[in-house]
Amino acid sequence: MNNRNKSAGLSSLFWARSVAVIGASRNPEKLGYEILANIVNGGYQGDVFPVNPKAEEILGLTVYPSVDAVPGEIELAVVVIPAPLVPGVLSQASEKGARAAIVISGGFAESGRSDLEHELSTVAEETGLRILGPNCQGLNYRPNKLCASWPLVTAPGPLAVVSQSGTVAATVAGWAVDEAYGISAAVSLGNQLDLCETDFIEFLAEDKETRVIALYLEGANDGRRLLRAAERVMSNKPIVVLKSGRTEVGRQAATSHTRSLAGRDEVFDGACRQFGIVRVSSLESLYDSAKSLSSLRLNGGRRVVVVTSSGGAGILAVDEAERRNLEVPPLPSRAAKELESSELRPNAIIANPLDLTVAPAQDFQKAALVLSEYDVADLYLLIFGDPIPEAADAVKRVRQKVGNRVAVAYLGGGETEASERARMHQAGIPVFATPQRAIAAIESVVLWEALRLKLGEYEKSGRKQVA
Amino acid sequence: MNNRNKSAGLSSLFWARSVAVIGASRNPEKLGYEILANIVNGGYQGDVFPVNPKAEEILGLTVYPSVDAVPGEIELAVVVIPAPLVPGVLSQASEKGARAAIVISGGFAESGRSDLEHELSTVAEETGLRILGPNCQGLNYRPNKLCASWPLVTAPGPLAVVSQSGTVAATVAGWAVDEAYGISAAVSLGNQLDLCETDFIEFLAEDKETRVIALYLEGANDGRRLLRAAERVMSNKPIVVLKSGRTEVGRQAATSHTRSLAGRDEVFDGACRQFGIVRVSSLESLYDSAKSLSSLRLNGGRRVVVVTSSGGAGILAVDEAERRNLEVPPLPSRAAKELESSELRPNAIIANPLDLTVAPAQDFQKAALVLSEYDVADLYLLIFGDPIPEAADAVKRVRQKVGNRVAVAYLGGGETEASERARMHQAGIPVFATPQRAIAAIESVVLWEALRLKLGEYEKSGRKQVA
Repeated sequence: MNNRNKSAGLSSLFWARSVAVIGASRNPEKLGYEILANIVNGGYQGDVFPVNPKAEEILGLTVYPSVDAVPGEIELAVVVIPAPLVPGVLSQASEKGARAAIVISGGFAESGRSDLEHELSTVAEETGLRILGPNCQGLNYRPNKLCASWPLVTAPGPLAVVSQSGTVAATVAGWAVDEAYGISAAVSLGNQLDLCETDFIEFLAEDKETRVIALYLEGANDGRRLLRAAERVMSNKPIVVLKSGRTEVGRQAATSHTRSLAGRDEVFDGACRQFGIVRVSSLESLYDSAKSLSSLRLNGGRRVVVVTSSGGAGILAVDEAERRNLEVPPLPSRAAKELESSELRPNAIIANPLDLTVAPAQDFQKAALVLSEYDVADLYLLIFGDPIPEAADAVKRVRQKVGNRVAVAYLGGGETEASERARMHQAGIPVFATPQRAIAAIESVVLWEALRLKLGEYEKSGRKQVA
Repeated sequence: MNNRNKSAGLSSLFWARSVAVIGASRNPEKLGYEILANIVNGGYQGDVFPVNPKAEEILGLTVYPSVDAVPGEIELAVVVIPAPLVPGVLSQASEKGARAAIVISGGFAESGRSDLEHELSTVAEETGLRILGPNCQGLNYRPNKLCASWPLVTAPGPLAVVSQSGTVAATVAGWAVDEAYGISAAVSLGNQLDLCETDFIEFLAEDKETRVIALYLEGANDGRRLLRAAERVMSNKPIVVLKSGRTEVGRQAATSHTRSLAGRDEVFDGACRQFGIVRVSSLESLYDSAKSLSSLRLNGGRRVVVVTSSGGAGILAVDEAERRNLEVPPLPSRAAKELESSELRPNAIIANPLDLTVAPAQDFQKAALVLSEYDVADLYLLIFGDPIPEAADAVKRVRQKVGNRVAVAYLGGGETEASERARMHQAGIPVFATPQRAIAAIESVVLWEALRLKLGEYEKSGRKQVA
């Protein structure tokens, strides 16, 4: 493999103008059908060539009996056929102009068939084809409206997920759709015969739609290259990682799953801190931290003011903030006085947390705008603990004033919650499922800013130092 | 207050045959409307008397200008009027036969009006009325189809939530509805002028529909009584608690919110361990552990076998199991051999985790049934990491064989996931959002069984001891 420019050829993967689905199926229960359907229904605008010797038409598209029979040029080959047939078919695809391939098929090294994986490797070297997989769940890239993966996800957003587990990629993407947050890309790496996580980090670092990269790793084939890339990307956009194989049993399972060498966990942990990667320990925190990192900035500070309609939720938030070493400063007496005379509910408790009691969205706006006149907070956490309508409008007005320093937790709000959350996410304001998850996600931003500062990038912007 | 039988009169709260909604409103944006609507739309079968001097009909019901004007007997009064009017109105309600009241209204001790709270207390003492609240979000009790609370939740299930925060109760109940798990009761305690968490624990301990009690506390008014009750209930059904006010800032906020004395956190922690209460540290784990405790039993063991369609999800599960001190035993060679010859996918990795790769639900059933022939597991965790249809059928068949020793994580499955999860929940099989959350919830059951054993209840049943 030519190592001089590892990321070369990725544009044919992400921006392919034509796609052949080799192994397209008429049977809706098969992956060869689902992937074709997702490409078609996901809005892809390029040419689509299904290939299957036993079919003539699928989903209204002409099916070709072989790769050779495809009438036009193929830029990207998506392959869903038995492993032994893959190397030969990719050689043919290359002759038809293909520059990249997504090999969904399993049955290679992970099943003890290293011979087939080696054969595929040889094809890649001889043809220059860039390969995602094998044994993967494909690629979804919204800027090209190409969902060569499953399930079908079309909501565009700032989050790119790159994962050694197809399920993890699908789960994070699924949450992003359910919450109307959206994704820019979802990449399932599989066996990483050719393209690995670092290739995608380098590509996505330059991708305009992507504002944060969420990684799930079981191990890194070339740890040094990953860390160097992370260090470069750092100045540009945040990377958050969930790495499994933390325990001995987990490490053994990781080796079976994707042949990854999980390595010593403490070493990985230290490397993340050194090279500016935010490490998290659960799937939810991978998603939550990606959301916060894509949209919040505390500018080097760590003071959080909580405004809430629920006393209990407010307490859960400040407990967690204390535990995580964020600051929950008391309100300056002048700010408290102004709040007292600003027509909040008579039962409101003027403190931090500021408990509005059951209150309309306008009270949140009023309170946050008063607080923004004092140097109280690096971040405003607004907690809607009831079905409060028009929350999104109020929060958007707060953001106009304070910039990307406002986060939301919305809970106990039923259908009102779901629609208001969607409106806030479409406006780029992150909404978290619970106060504790909000605080944990905010801490990720503080950590990232501290790592950036340490790496010297942050210092240049002249912001104050993290304690 | 008469302390001889603290739980007396609760049947008029839970099983009321008639309810007056004092402060019922025509305005759909007001609580006085929402609560009336939820009682009506929640399926309540008893008499409903809205009271409001300014309305004649709301939601098709005749409205009475005063409590005195109600034509029949009132068993339960639900009160949503300004605080200063509450004591007088409750005296009237008592004269009309009321034995219990839910005071939604705020504006009492929590707002510095201890005088009003005292006045209300006097009414309670003089009339014998049992009071939930004031300053609370009410009560939802599905066996009586009475939702005197918000939002409207009607799905019946095994979970009772009792909470010092209305938002926490609503959030947990909301999750239970979204996932078709259901609730038996949701109680928002408010200021606990009369009835406190222990009264509800004692009532729910005897409630047939309730299989687990989830508590959110900021403090306990009578800690000893709570712990003694917990110890008694232990032999009957599990209690899981989320207690906030863990940090100094949180403790101060708790004092403002419900006048609770949060106490020292370590003391509470030790008391939970001593008296058989499972303590958790987040809202999700309160919900997850309630689900696992209501339906799983490991019979004193702690060995988990993981069967998964997703390698990555399997690794996350076993990592977490190791971290939480569950056992992930290797498969006995005879079991492995039988699995190898049992027509699973050719790429399946026969180990623990057992990675079926993308596989139909039948493969999960096949694998779990083979494993059940060997003494491998105290609990089977089945992880569906793809949109796998008919998962519920397969899991139900596994449960027929192994009993309440099967838990599920389902993720990355889109709409298929949602419908299969609902079917499993309706069958009483707990489904968790991620592998890590599943493992944490399973650990709660292990902990509870160990606490029971320690309390001597478990020993009597002759099961083996927890290590």
